[in-house]
Amino acid sequence: MPKSSKDVSVWVIRRLPRYYRFLNELLRNGICRISSRELSQKMGLTASQIRQDLNCFGGFGQQGYGYNVELLHNEIGNILGLNKKIPIVLIGAGNLGRALTIHMDFDYRGFNLIGIFDVNPAIIGTEIGGVKVSDMSELEAFCKKEHPQAAILCIPKAAAHDVAENLISWGVKGFWNFSHYDLSFHFPDVITENVHLGDSLMTLCFMINNDTSSDPEPKDE
Amino acid sequence: MPKSSKDVSVWVIRRLPRYYRFLNELLRNGICRISSRELSQKMGLTASQIRQDLNCFGGFGQQGYGYNVELLHNEIGNILGLNKKIPIVLIGAGNLGRALTIHMDFDYRGFNLIGIFDVNPAIIGTEIGGVKVSDMSELEAFCKKEHPQAAILCIPKAAAHDVAENLISWGVKGFWNFSHYDLSFHFPDVITENVHLGDSLMTLCFMINNDTSSDPEPKDE
Repeated sequence: MPKSSKDVSVWVIRRLPRYYRFLNELLRNGICRISSRELSQKMGLTASQIRQDLNCFGGFGQQGYGYNVELLHNEIGNILGLNKKIPIVLIGAGNLGRALTIHMDFDYRGFNLIGIFDVNPAIIGTEIGGVKVSDMSELEAFCKKEHPQAAILCIPKAAAHDVAENLISWGVKGFWNFSHYDLSFHFPDVITENVHLGDSLMTLCFMINNDTSSDPEPKDE
Repeated sequence: MPKSSKDVSVWVIRRLPRYYRFLNELLRNGICRISSRELSQKMGLTASQIRQDLNCFGGFGQQGYGYNVELLHNEIGNILGLNKKIPIVLIGAGNLGRALTIHMDFDYRGFNLIGIFDVNPAIIGTEIGGVKVSDMSELEAFCKKEHPQAAILCIPKAAAHDVAENLISWGVKGFWNFSHYDLSFHFPDVITENVHLGDSLMTLCFMINNDTSSDPEPKDE
């Protein structure tokens, strides 16, 4: 391991989930061992890139043997901290919030979805994916009792500032942000993972119009 | 403009939608003119980075004046080709597909959603966001008549290969891929924009566990 995970390049960090995903697929296909050459072909990276990436965390490969798939899969899961099951709340149970709740396996990805909050009386009290939708007015008491560390923001941009400010004051330290509100600019100390689906769609528009490809999994070389 | 859009770095291309989004917000706030310094502060980029990016397409700034917001907004829209309204179909109208249909303003982002297809008899014939859900068995005839150029894949990984192969043979050249199937590996000539929400969530998990930040809008410097 490097002295601190802060020393590891953002791109290595962003590739870790991808390694985890590929290795999981290999495991499910009963593949126990893979060379860095084979892994690199599957992932569209160079073998040297993979060795460099994994060396950031201490290696894991064996000369002439390659990688033990299960071991590497579990190690990457440990590096990501997927076993920690960070308590997370969903704010905004409209179409997108509902889709994420049902579509995402939070547990597999290191989180425990402990609460869903909305302002719409029509859905308050209903359940989505086994979790009850509560009234936003109950959020403060909930946070003080259950201590969620993360929140998914599926709310309009106009509501995002106040909701985030409150959540931060109640102990939330990380956001999965679908709101298009620039949280990092206003709360620079908060951990934010933005998802801009609209930007992604406009990028596709450019690529189709120009018949060009913007490598969807860019390398930092 | 550079000789070809193919000459422009992937990172410049990926920043264009972000410029467009910020400029749109300025416009809506009635701001007509902005210096590269102000724009850079708002966007968390350096002023020099912004000048470099826009120089790839011929500039647009005026010494001592800054940028005309509306002009720059429209120019970036033109570069992205948002006025082309590329015909696109949605394959898979489960929770995620439904959320995208309702949540996304396709028209604003360069596309025209002309069809939705699913295999589930319970939703075939219903409407989502004003578009009828048709049976997958009608897809071939639809493509041959309406010529969609792009498709959104909100289907399980196991179904993605065959559906994509068919769509490509029927003229689709770009995919917005939520299926987790590695299209680019199997169809290297096809334009693919992958959205891996699960990877994004695992990245957040790592950042929270390590109290670190992975700049969500990375620069290529």
